[in-house]
Amino acid sequence: MCGLSCTGTAYAEPANLGEIKLAIDSVWVVVAAMLVFMMQAGFALVEGGMVRSKNAVNVIMKNYLDACFGGLVFWAIGYGLMFGTNGTGWFGASHFFPEQMADWDWTFMFFQMMFAATATTIASGAMAERIHFVAYLVGACLVSGLIYPIFGSWAWGSAHGGDGWLKAMGFIDFAGSTVVHSIGGWVALAGIMILGPRMGRFDSQGRARHIPGHNLTQIALGGFMLWLAWFAFNAGSTVAAGGNIGKIALNTHLAACAGTVSYMVLTLLRRKAILLTGTINASLGGLVAITAGCASMSPVFAILTGLAAGIVVTYGPLLLERLGLDDVVDAVSVHGFCGAWGTIAAGLFFEGQLFNLDRVLVQCIGVFSGFIWGFGVALLVYFTLGKLLGGLRVSPQHEQRGLDYTEHAELAYPEFQDDAVFDHDQMNSRR
Amino acid sequence: MCGLSCTGTAYAEPANLGEIKLAIDSVWVVVAAMLVFMMQAGFALVEGGMVRSKNAVNVIMKNYLDACFGGLVFWAIGYGLMFGTNGTGWFGASHFFPEQMADWDWTFMFFQMMFAATATTIASGAMAERIHFVAYLVGACLVSGLIYPIFGSWAWGSAHGGDGWLKAMGFIDFAGSTVVHSIGGWVALAGIMILGPRMGRFDSQGRARHIPGHNLTQIALGGFMLWLAWFAFNAGSTVAAGGNIGKIALNTHLAACAGTVSYMVLTLLRRKAILLTGTINASLGGLVAITAGCASMSPVFAILTGLAAGIVVTYGPLLLERLGLDDVVDAVSVHGFCGAWGTIAAGLFFEGQLFNLDRVLVQCIGVFSGFIWGFGVALLVYFTLGKLLGGLRVSPQHEQRGLDYTEHAELAYPEFQDDAVFDHDQMNSRR
Amino acid sequence: MCGLSCTGTAYAEPANLGEIKLAIDSVWVVVAAMLVFMMQAGFALVEGGMVRSKNAVNVIMKNYLDACFGGLVFWAIGYGLMFGTNGTGWFGASHFFPEQMADWDWTFMFFQMMFAATATTIASGAMAERIHFVAYLVGACLVSGLIYPIFGSWAWGSAHGGDGWLKAMGFIDFAGSTVVHSIGGWVALAGIMILGPRMGRFDSQGRARHIPGHNLTQIALGGFMLWLAWFAFNAGSTVAAGGNIGKIALNTHLAACAGTVSYMVLTLLRRKAILLTGTINASLGGLVAITAGCASMSPVFAILTGLAAGIVVTYGPLLLERLGLDDVVDAVSVHGFCGAWGTIAAGLFFEGQLFNLDRVLVQCIGVFSGFIWGFGVALLVYFTLGKLLGGLRVSPQHEQRGLDYTEHAELAYPEFQDDAVFDHDQMNSRR
Repeated sequence: MCGLSCTGTAYAEPANLGEIKLAIDSVWVVVAAMLVFMMQAGFALVEGGMVRSKNAVNVIMKNYLDACFGGLVFWAIGYGLMFGTNGTGWFGASHFFPEQMADWDWTFMFFQMMFAATATTIASGAMAERIHFVAYLVGACLVSGLIYPIFGSWAWGSAHGGDGWLKAMGFIDFAGSTVVHSIGGWVALAGIMILGPRMGRFDSQGRARHIPGHNLTQIALGGFMLWLAWFAFNAGSTVAAGGNIGKIALNTHLAACAGTVSYMVLTLLRRKAILLTGTINASLGGLVAITAGCASMSPVFAILTGLAAGIVVTYGPLLLERLGLDDVVDAVSVHGFCGAWGTIAAGLFFEGQLFNLDRVLVQCIGVFSGFIWGFGVALLVYFTLGKLLGGLRVSPQHEQRGLDYTEHAELAYPEFQDDAVFDHDQMNSRR
Repeated sequence: MCGLSCTGTAYAEPANLGEIKLAIDSVWVVVAAMLVFMMQAGFALVEGGMVRSKNAVNVIMKNYLDACFGGLVFWAIGYGLMFGTNGTGWFGASHFFPEQMADWDWTFMFFQMMFAATATTIASGAMAERIHFVAYLVGACLVSGLIYPIFGSWAWGSAHGGDGWLKAMGFIDFAGSTVVHSIGGWVALAGIMILGPRMGRFDSQGRARHIPGHNLTQIALGGFMLWLAWFAFNAGSTVAAGGNIGKIALNTHLAACAGTVSYMVLTLLRRKAILLTGTINASLGGLVAITAGCASMSPVFAILTGLAAGIVVTYGPLLLERLGLDDVVDAVSVHGFCGAWGTIAAGLFFEGQLFNLDRVLVQCIGVFSGFIWGFGVALLVYFTLGKLLGGLRVSPQHEQRGLDYTEHAELAYPEFQDDAVFDHDQMNSRR
Repeated sequence: MCGLSCTGTAYAEPANLGEIKLAIDSVWVVVAAMLVFMMQAGFALVEGGMVRSKNAVNVIMKNYLDACFGGLVFWAIGYGLMFGTNGTGWFGASHFFPEQMADWDWTFMFFQMMFAATATTIASGAMAERIHFVAYLVGACLVSGLIYPIFGSWAWGSAHGGDGWLKAMGFIDFAGSTVVHSIGGWVALAGIMILGPRMGRFDSQGRARHIPGHNLTQIALGGFMLWLAWFAFNAGSTVAAGGNIGKIALNTHLAACAGTVSYMVLTLLRRKAILLTGTINASLGGLVAITAGCASMSPVFAILTGLAAGIVVTYGPLLLERLGLDDVVDAVSVHGFCGAWGTIAAGLFFEGQLFNLDRVLVQCIGVFSGFIWGFGVALLVYFTLGKLLGGLRVSPQHEQRGLDYTEHAELAYPEFQDDAVFDHDQMNSRR
């Protein structure tokens, strides 16, 4: 632990400017990556709070294991597909199972790995309370290792030579409104279409019924943690320490604030109650939307981006309900729809070049190709998984009992849950 | 996302020393600001845990929306009042609704915005379980946009030219024992005086009765998060990266430890039980107290500052109870009283100039002017709001039912709360 | 708060290279230390969730007070014993109650203080639900001030001159698989041997019975927080900013992922349910194991280290149960056993010198001396404490009622716990 640099008051001699630049960039990117990891906890809390207590363990496990499987898969093949040498513009093809790389490349991979985990975990909440555990995990590995990195290579590739085709067109998605969030949202959309709604989510006339989550305090804590992590997500995407990170973080903050405020005002106008769940989602919508343009807008446009996102997250869930879709946490609206809006906003509100239609067109191409790729491949994946596993969805009996009992043999709050229906002997035998 | 700096093993050429200095200061201040944002979550958890479950959503919503409204208001006018060009010493008068500033100024604003949110949110816990939601939010905007920044301009102004009058006198409040915490505490004091105590808080003979909070685990988690955020709050207040940040963080830690230990020993001597709630508040009291002097004391005096704060938070709440005041989370004692003590301690224990009475006098002037301003203006604000809105306080029926039901149409733990009294049809109709 | 560096757009002139190096190292180490503090919260949540709700306050209080007492004790004597001038190789003997040190030394102490708190708090969970509060705190002070720093001086000492004897032999324990985690684990082992199992943990035939924890969501949140803090724990142990921190963090992540995956696969093969509690512990086992070698392995060996740790945490608890020991949170397996494995792995998988037996031998000596010292001294301490206090363990009546009621006069969730047995009048009289 102690080299020269900590021997008492003596202090290591100054290094050269290049080493110092590498050191400070590494500090910034590693710290940012650490805080982005907090998103896993944030999503776990938000999603866990939004489900019924009988599925709390299940949805948290999905988030925890996303990070684990996703990490290994992204190291093995995702990084290479996304940032490996990109000859065609359509995918990278080097740096698989990397063992020897320069210091900086490991730092860069560490940061990118957290992004892959985020993209993956977005879908877990939408499909909660009814999907088979193993089917979910296989799907998650495909997102981390295939769906996310290949689209990523189009927009951000490549660190190791050759540009992705979207990047070459001048597509702007600074920290991933489309690359991370919309992709995650479209995967979620495909998932819930194939899964169908939870039992009791719609009544016999097809009218939506509200199924309240079991812990709103936890949802709010998750919201705070996501918000904090988002500063690192956006400002860290400079992947270099520099004077511009403060403005990026500030824009991020203002858009989140604005999303919340617009949701609140709109809800007052609609004469509805201002829900905690709606408020948290509105702030997240603002954060998703500003992710694309946070580095290329002035604050007033960041606020505009957020205000519009507040409207998107208000009406998005109503639209999905109208279509008979059951998105447990409104992930499609928050990540898919707001991500699309934010990507377009990054073109519209580009500083010094406002409302440039060429730019907006490129942004739309990016949004559209993200939808086609994310939704299309995920639809194929979940459909195939369903066929292979004899159904993506647990049995009605299991759904009714709750997945914590049927899939994990553990309850989230054993002292507080009504366990009349639980068979403790059977549960213990499975431990 | 990828400029030159991440193209594989190739690495951007060294910048000049000035750019590097800006980069590292930006990294430090942005990271610190991010972690200070965690205070919002910390306060939400502490306050949420200290109220009954029927008001958990309400108090968390106040913390969440403080950050949202406060962020926008501070950008619009607070920053200008606090750090704009200060011709008179009494307030800043430039940089309102800023759109074009230097990189560093955005970073500085981002950091300061988190402080404004902290000052604002302190009052939310004290006034919990009985204040009208909208009245609270209007008050919060006035704290973020007016009360806090104007006092801030006296002590810390101004970044854009001209010194505040307290700063010019040599007032020391490094990270805001008075500027942030006492001001927040005095606003809370004014609020609870106008609101009056919760139903059942005092019996018919005026004897205080304890109303236990609903989740002590959550309170402890909030305490940990506040503590962590405080390192960034204090050490980040260098607003520049430098060798001195370690000592500041260490002093911060030792004072928090000492506050807890002195509460514990004192409680043993008083033959009372060592409460978790008391322990958390004692550590927070130590943190508040060291905030003023953390950069200008040696460790042993940081410990002394904390030890005394442990005594203040033990007797402060008893004093308020004696006066018939109901401070749900003891915010007045923790932030108001300990902030005042800490500001004086910063004068008493100034390194190399211990117990200099001139210095102590200036500190007392700062403390006193903070009280006059914070308490006085807040009293006026809440009194006026009460008149305008026909009462600051919800009806007794609503107070009894709980604000989550009456103001938000959501329960924090719908599966676990006794909902015999809830009208679900009405609740759903409001969603 | 505002020196030259924040006066508007004007910006402080560049410092020299030495100052900049000190600044960036300070930023890195202080930020890392802050995040390591998050481990206290992580442990509190994991341990709190794994006990029954009647002991939730008690176990959280132990974690909170560990940090408080440990901080003061480590400042007073622990730092001097660990990093003071080490003439003999067996302990440091300067820098007690330090008041004047160089800037860098304070930063270094702040970082090390967080490590001491971590080592101390490991034992709290294992001994939960039955140990006397005061006995626990005395033990904790001895760990922070004596057991941990003296062993630390052997392996890491000394910053102020003179090498520890293990360090002189070439022992590798980069961030403390043995120094921090195994030592904590062996202290826990001694504690639970002297304490004996909880009532009802083994039936009359000596067969183990499972006592489920009360909140699994909380356990998962604690797991996430520990994981995040571990990045800082390991990468921060460079105690200098540099290009290598990314790889260290990445290795840390991969080992955690691998530990979880190997637990999961092994559990499927054993035809058992994949438990949330087991999953979290498997990730922590991976993190403990990689702590020694995170800076001197390539990723594939980090993954191997983690995979094996997943096996260790699967069978370790079964072994302890077989021996009739009751480790409430499996701290001995996670920290003790995985720490030992990880320390050996650091020798086996040393980059560029794989499977060097000399190196492995030195590692084994370190592991063994850690066990002898940690377990031996702790056995003596807890045995003596038991004699002095007339028993280390609370009475059966108190154990049955729960320590929150008997030791703290507070319940964690007063609205939700069945309080038929609680005497509120007596409880209030103790407040």
